[in-house]
Amino acid sequence: LDYQHVQVPFEITLWIMLASLAKIGFHLYNKLPSVVPESCLLIFVGLIMGGIIYGLNDRSPPVMDTDIFFLYLLPPIVLDAGYFMPSRPFFENIGTILLYAVVGTIWNVFGIGFSLYGICQVKAFRLQDVSLLHNLLFGSLIAAVDPVAVLAVFEEIHVNEKLHILVFGESLLNDAVTVVLYKLFRSFCEMPTIKSVDVFAGVGKFFVVGLGGVLVGLSFGFTAAFTTRFTKDIRVIEPLFVFLYSYLSYLTAEMFHLSGIVAIISCAMGMKRYVEANISLKSHTTVKYFMKMWSSVSDTLIFIFLGVSTIGENHEWNWPYICFTVIFCLIWRALGVLVLTFFVNRFHVNTITSKDQFIIAYGGLRGAICFSLVFLLPDFRRKKLFIAATTVVILFTVFIQGMTIRPLVDLLAVKRKRESAPTVGEQIHIRFLDHLLAGIEDISGHWGQYYWKDKLEYFNSKYLQKILLREYDQPKSSIVLLYEKLERKHAIELAQAGQLGHGPAHPSFLCSAFLCSSSDRTVITDQKLEDTPNPDVLDNMQEILARNLYRIRRTGPAYNRHTLPGDSEPTEHAKEILILRHKSL
Amino acid sequence: LDYQHVQVPFEITLWIMLASLAKIGFHLYNKLPSVVPESCLLIFVGLIMGGIIYGLNDRSPPVMDTDIFFLYLLPPIVLDAGYFMPSRPFFENIGTILLYAVVGTIWNVFGIGFSLYGICQVKAFRLQDVSLLHNLLFGSLIAAVDPVAVLAVFEEIHVNEKLHILVFGESLLNDAVTVVLYKLFRSFCEMPTIKSVDVFAGVGKFFVVGLGGVLVGLSFGFTAAFTTRFTKDIRVIEPLFVFLYSYLSYLTAEMFHLSGIVAIISCAMGMKRYVEANISLKSHTTVKYFMKMWSSVSDTLIFIFLGVSTIGENHEWNWPYICFTVIFCLIWRALGVLVLTFFVNRFHVNTITSKDQFIIAYGGLRGAICFSLVFLLPDFRRKKLFIAATTVVILFTVFIQGMTIRPLVDLLAVKRKRESAPTVGEQIHIRFLDHLLAGIEDISGHWGQYYWKDKLEYFNSKYLQKILLREYDQPKSSIVLLYEKLERKHAIELAQAGQLGHGPAHPSFLCSAFLCSSSDRTVITDQKLEDTPNPDVLDNMQEILARNLYRIRRTGPAYNRHTLPGDSEPTEHAKEILILRHKSL
Repeated sequence: LDYQHVQVPFEITLWIMLASLAKIGFHLYNKLPSVVPESCLLIFVGLIMGGIIYGLNDRSPPVMDTDIFFLYLLPPIVLDAGYFMPSRPFFENIGTILLYAVVGTIWNVFGIGFSLYGICQVKAFRLQDVSLLHNLLFGSLIAAVDPVAVLAVFEEIHVNEKLHILVFGESLLNDAVTVVLYKLFRSFCEMPTIKSVDVFAGVGKFFVVGLGGVLVGLSFGFTAAFTTRFTKDIRVIEPLFVFLYSYLSYLTAEMFHLSGIVAIISCAMGMKRYVEANISLKSHTTVKYFMKMWSSVSDTLIFIFLGVSTIGENHEWNWPYICFTVIFCLIWRALGVLVLTFFVNRFHVNTITSKDQFIIAYGGLRGAICFSLVFLLPDFRRKKLFIAATTVVILFTVFIQGMTIRPLVDLLAVKRKRESAPTVGEQIHIRFLDHLLAGIEDISGHWGQYYWKDKLEYFNSKYLQKILLREYDQPKSSIVLLYEKLERKHAIELAQAGQLGHGPAHPSFLCSAFLCSSSDRTVITDQKLEDTPNPDVLDNMQEILARNLYRIRRTGPAYNRHTLPGDSEPTEHAKEILILRHKSL
Repeated sequence: LDYQHVQVPFEITLWIMLASLAKIGFHLYNKLPSVVPESCLLIFVGLIMGGIIYGLNDRSPPVMDTDIFFLYLLPPIVLDAGYFMPSRPFFENIGTILLYAVVGTIWNVFGIGFSLYGICQVKAFRLQDVSLLHNLLFGSLIAAVDPVAVLAVFEEIHVNEKLHILVFGESLLNDAVTVVLYKLFRSFCEMPTIKSVDVFAGVGKFFVVGLGGVLVGLSFGFTAAFTTRFTKDIRVIEPLFVFLYSYLSYLTAEMFHLSGIVAIISCAMGMKRYVEANISLKSHTTVKYFMKMWSSVSDTLIFIFLGVSTIGENHEWNWPYICFTVIFCLIWRALGVLVLTFFVNRFHVNTITSKDQFIIAYGGLRGAICFSLVFLLPDFRRKKLFIAATTVVILFTVFIQGMTIRPLVDLLAVKRKRESAPTVGEQIHIRFLDHLLAGIEDISGHWGQYYWKDKLEYFNSKYLQKILLREYDQPKSSIVLLYEKLERKHAIELAQAGQLGHGPAHPSFLCSAFLCSSSDRTVITDQKLEDTPNPDVLDNMQEILARNLYRIRRTGPAYNRHTLPGDSEPTEHAKEILILRHKSL
């Protein structure tokens, strides 16, 4: 037995396996996930695992490594979030989101920091050795809403799109603020004296960290799009570039102390439309599927590790400090949302209702980011107290708020998301209105959202597409793309339905299904087609279809590692079909 | 700048990126890969990279880490090979493959070892300090044909299926022999005296290592199949299990000093049919695509690293030893193939021709496995000589043999692979003949290949399928599955062709295409349908189809991390279609 040799990959694989099996386990009981959010269940599994490890080894289980979290577990989740980000509601509410993310987070940091410092002055609590700076440092890590926790809970409660994007967008973009404030206070803690220059430098850093992240992300995103222009002959490595460039953008941003989360989101949003147009359909399925899979596993692992790391002897318990932390987190968030929304509502027609405000405040969940940051703190006497307080806040928000938010959403009758996607008609109208509003804004000289969007679209089709797309001479509107997608889906479904209905007995059910549904209509409009579905004709059609299944005749060479079986040129087939059809006409 | 923090993932990502970009680069020049195999180009890139690193740092570039190779780079390639292994030719030739892999490898090891020892006795060569045991140890690592190198070359030359599987199967299965002999000789080198018991124990180990690998692999494979029974509600993590269980089988086998390659191949071949039946179509596309992508990248990295590691000061040059190594490798392989094939041909009707024998002997390429093993050698005086000899053998086989094998195959007019897949008719006949032969074997009391295959198939449908498949009550024959696949493909192609031909102007081209091709036939058989493709009727059909594109009406909820957009129940849709059709009838 040579365990040493395989230990690292073996243990990683086992952890991922545990996470995946836990997920399957929860979904076997259909009732459980509808009451308790998955995140709570996973933390619970983690607590049990931690308990077992603690019991067996008689020492604290290993805590979640901060590097592992920030370098390996967080990026997949953020990439997934960025890639599938609904860009329209995001950009429509970007102002509000930034306000919550920047001003709101600063408000929370200083609110929580100063009020906890106030608590520390009460002699009875025996906390006088915790300085203001330490409290502010603690505030900076505990204030930030966590995207992983928010996603895990909000994706299950299906609130309306705007509310979702406000909370989720805030949780993503506050990363820049958190990074700056946390690093600022941490370096202040280590400095002997703080000059006012340092404070101003800190303020300047906000912009560097945030905008730098966007810049890094976009440049990697566009490079990724450009690279996929040249992958036509080796489709099989296309998905790789999406992952590689996004990850590089994250790592590069982290390397320069910029916001990695902002970078990876910009990268994903920047590359998405171009990459989708360049890569093959199968590659795109793989990209989407793998992204979902990866983020799902990362997210599961994070919550399990959170549970495991909670067990142990890292905690110093101090009732007043911990209770007041929870209370201040709730109060300052509520106040912040109220005040900021007051200003937001003054400048918007489509206001945020008080119900929505409540859910925004209540949905401010804390998660693994705080947890990782608190372990990154420099060692000082009260670090264990901070760890305990952070753990309690996370468990409180994930368990209590996470479990009650769904009943509250039901109780308050918060506007839900519309379940259906917009129809083609609606989409055309939306686009028409966008053009109209852009025109109005242009005429009235108001450089608003629509004006910029129109300019960006112009710049995109004029320059970017030519550089980044392989077939830039045939730009397809999104309506056409949607139509193509629908028709493809429809064709697959019909093929499947034909099999499900009749099985092998009717080899051309696909054909007959079409004739049936069309004849149904022509019974009314055109009498000539009425007799179509009689058995003889169907048999004939079966024959024709059997002949036209030309795939049987030619299949790509097997054994080639760079192509998948049957992954040959679609254009050739299309041509063949066209020739067949022309002949028949 | 904080490079330390992100160094590990950043450098890994950059290496993968380099590999992928190199691959794209080669494929941009279409002519290059048709003359020079990709493996040679990649080694060349590696040599340049190594030269640059050597030039800049003025010290040897880091050699390929053996652990990285065996734990991370090799498994994806072997998994891919096992998963896409054509099982019929493999099992039909399993006897011959095992003979080549076991007896052939032992023959080569001892042949090369003893004859090199003979060379060492020549005083003029100054090699008298290389003992017999060291020569045998060297023989054990240099004798084994490398699956990665064989795959890279043979997939480009398209020889016939039997020839391919003979060389490729041998290269995979000789792993068990190589592992045993290498470890045996290495421990002999460290032992003061060798008892005859140790030698017998070594022989017994062959079976343990090989059969143990099969056992570990199959048990993990069946567990994987069983697990995918329960993933219906979380489709998105289905692909994960295929990778996790295969990797675990490899690691477990390595842990117990069994053959990891044999284990992962058994695992992949064991799980394939059950997993494919259990998981969704999209999951399966992802599994296949990702496997190809991963193995492609691994393979690229291996050849680049091979090039990089060649540069440096690890070599001790001794002309006679190195030249004779290359010569003996060629001679003993040729002799081995000749002798073994002589025996094989005596017991087979379908003999291996002398041309095939030449290609089998000539295709015995060495690659990264030898290279990793030689660095794993315990330190002794002549290790650098062995490294130099191994490097030369690898470069010789990959460059000289790899580049000349294609012209030779052309020159000898070796039977090529048939380019087209067997038709449905052929498949039915093959299956029919299998049953017939199984019956004949049963009656004649000859327990041959077909008898066992039939028994296995019976056991499979009677027991295994019930345990491992989710819907075991509806077993589908492979013909039905093939038909389903063809119809699905056909439907997609028709949808795409409709768009390619007419674009958005004809929103129901799919429908009209069907009517056209069918009406073509009915012109002859049924006069009623003759007028079908007139514009009015087509317009009506467009309307019908537009109405039946019910996907527009209902799309799955967005924002759910565990489902992909539009990944809803196929059965529901099928039902809806059936209802629609029943109404229309």
